[in-house]
Formats: sequence, C-alpha cells, structure tokens
Amino acid sequence: MAWLTTLKTQTPEEGFELATKMSRMAVKAAQPDDTIRAELRSVYERDADSLTRASHVVAVNFQTVAAANDYWR
Amino acid sequence: MAWLTTLKTQTPEEGFELATKMSRMAVKAAQPDDTIRAELRSVYERDADSLTRASHVVAVNFQTVAAANDYWR
Amino acid sequence: MAWLTTLKTQTPEEGFELATKMSRMAVKAAQPDDTIRAELRSVYERDADSLTRASHVVAVNFQTVAAANDYWR
Amino acid sequence: MAWLTTLKTQTPEEGFELATKMSRMAVKAAQPDDTIRAELRSVYERDADSLTRASHVVAVNFQTVAAANDYWR
Amino acid sequence: MAWLTTLKTQTPEEGFELATKMSRMAVKAAQPDDTIRAELRSVYERDADSLTRASHVVAVNFQTVAAANDYWR
Amino acid sequence: MAWLTTLKTQTPEEGFELATKMSRMAVKAAQPDDTIRAELRSVYERDADSLTRASHVVAVNFQTVAAANDYWR
Repeated sequence: MAWLTTLKTQTPEEGFELATKMSRMAVKAAQPDDTIRAELRSVYERDADSLTRASHVVAVNFQTVAAANDYWR
Repeated sequence: MAWLTTLKTQTPEEGFELATKMSRMAVKAAQPDDTIRAELRSVYERDADSLTRASHVVAVNFQTVAAANDYWR
Repeated sequence: MAWLTTLKTQTPEEGFELATKMSRMAVKAAQPDDTIRAELRSVYERDADSLTRASHVVAVNFQTVAAANDYWR
Repeated sequence: MAWLTTLKTQTPEEGFELATKMSRMAVKAAQPDDTIRAELRSVYERDADSLTRASHVVAVNFQTVAAANDYWR
Repeated sequence: MAWLTTLKTQTPEEGFELATKMSRMAVKAAQPDDTIRAELRSVYERDADSLTRASHVVAVNFQTVAAANDYWR
Repeated sequence: MAWLTTLKTQTPEEGFELATKMSRMAVKAAQPDDTIRAELRSVYERDADSLTRASHVVAVNFQTVAAANDYWR
C-alpha cells in the first residue's frame, strides 16, 4: 500500500508529521523487522545524541515538505 | 493543541526561536517523557559536540523558516 | 548498464525509492564487493545510529529527486 | 536585546561572521552558563573533529545568510 | 591541470559520478599522499558508518550538480 | 584584511577552492593558534572519517558558491 502519495499537507504541523514519517520509513526500509526496531528504539530514545540525529533527519525532510507546500504561504 | 500553525514570524530572531522549537519538538516526539528528556539534557548540555549537533539542527530548520519568510527582506 | 537515466518518477513514493537507491549506489561505488557489503549490513542494521545516518542520506537525496519532479505538484 | 534583526550584511565576510554568530547563539541558548561554555571550549578547540563540526554549522548558516543577501551579487 | 571545468553533464548518472569525484577531490586536497589515502581506504571501506558518511557527501555534491543541470529536465 | 570580498569565481574549480578556504577559515576562527591547528592536522589527515567530514563541509560551502555563480552556466 502506498504511504507517500503526495507531499501536500493542510498545515505546517501536518507537514512536520509527514517529515517524521518519512524519516522513520527510511529506517524501516533498511530494517523491516518490527521487533528489532523496537529493541533499537529502547536504546536510542535514551541517548541525547541519537535523538538529536533523528531531529536532524526530520529537519531535512521538513525542508522538502515545506518547499512542496510553498511554505504554506 | 497545534504548535506549528505558520512558519511566518515578525523578525529573523523570532524565526530563529521557532527553528529552535522545531528542533526540540522533533526530539520530544521521539522521547515524550519529560523526566527522561531532562536527564538527557543534563548530560548533553555539558558536551561540546552535543551542543554543536543541536546548533546544526537549528541551522537546518532556520533555513526553512527563513525561506518561508522570504528572508525577512 | 545505466542505473540513473532520469530523476523523474511517477509518484513521491517512487522518488523516495530512487533516493534510497542513490544512497546505496554511492556505498556500492565505494565498496563494490557484495559479500563485504552484506557483512557490514548485518552489523549496521542493528545499530540505531547507523540506521538514522542512512535515513539522513536518503533525505538529502530525496530533496534532489523532489526538486527534479517539481515536488509532484 | 535583539541580536538578529536582519540577515542583510554589507559584504560576504560580514555574512560569514553573522553565520558564525548564529551558530554560537544556538549553542548559548542550549547552554547559557558562560563558565561551562568556556570549559567546553577549552576541550573542543583542541579536537579536530569538533572544529570541523563547528565549521559545518557555520557553512549551513552561511547558506541562509548568502541567500538572504542574494549572494551579494 | 583543471579537473572541474564545468558542472554540466550529459546524464544524471554522469552527474552522480562527478559528485563522487568532487567528494574525493576534497579528501585528496586535505591528504595529498596517495599511499596514506590507500591505507585509510582499506579501513574505511569495511566500516558501514564510514561508507554511509561518504554516501552523504556524494548526496550533497549531487544536489549541486543536479541544480547546475536543471535536474536534466 | 578582508579574505571574503566576493563569492564570484572564474571557474567551478576556483569556486571549489574558495569553498575549501571557507571551510578552513571557520576552523581558524574557532582555533586561531597556528601551532595547535598544525598539530590537529597531523592527526586528522590520517583519519578517514575526519577527511570525509572535511569533504562534507566543503560540499556545503560549494553549494553556496555555486549558487552565487549561477552554477557557472
């Protein structure tokens, strides 16, 4: 099933959520096993640098989504 | 409650603050527990590289906010 | 055989898959040996930070693909 | 007191200095204590990778400042 | 001898190869000794994170090359 | 003395050299001591990841220089 049919969102906040989803889907593509991802998550969510790295990827994807929405102007 | 309804700000400085907030909200989405984030913060705020990484994410988000505001020209 | 003849895709999702392929092809260019890459993969796919780094590269390549497709507007 | 009222600068070099300031202000926002930042600085300024990371953040902020100034064309 | 006279390429794939070359030339400028680079390469090509980092730099350079070619539209 | 009076260069290759200079000047601003930078350099130039990180910063600065020169079209 398609998960990314459009980059258009109603609001910046929905765009931010889409950027978060895109960041996670790339991880899921590289590691499809839900159990392993859950294990990794339990470590990563308690590591400040890991969280900053994740925030960085969301920021990059949000640039793309924001441009696609003409910055919701 | 919506926290990101617009990328428009009155000044570049408010835009920088919004970029900082966006960086933190992505962390909060990945680690919603306030107590854990406070613990992580006490370590990260004394690590130069962690602070540089955080500054990097703000810079990426600020690119988006600045473009959305046509660079406050 | 050419693997990158166009940046155009039908949908954002196909664009995301192309961005993933571009990220992998750059790795393959640096390490052409399939066996070694498979070994590295078995380690990297169980490391949260490695997966985040990979997601980051996909995000950067997706920016390019999305711009090439005028964001599928 | 406002520290970022405009992204406009007279020259590229002043723009580079502004980008450096932006990088530092994001660090200062995350770690407001001058003494702690000075301690961290004494370590970080002797670590090549830390310096490269800092240069990276300046480069990202400079992209924004340069765009805001239409690249001083 | 000039190695970068134009950012124009016939195809996206040649653009990707140029982006790879640009990434390597920056390394070569910082470490001109061929023997040392070969030694470093033997380590780096067996480290997944090193390969991802290299792929990241190619992705950034490819953004520039793609824009220079108007995305081969 | 001014070191960055313009982002304009005659050729892409000169632009690449300017991007390299910008990357180094940001490091120099953070660590002005020539002796210390030389020491750090002797370590960093034998570390593959350090060299990749440096190449990354050059790539980001080159994006800016290339845009300023309209990609030397």
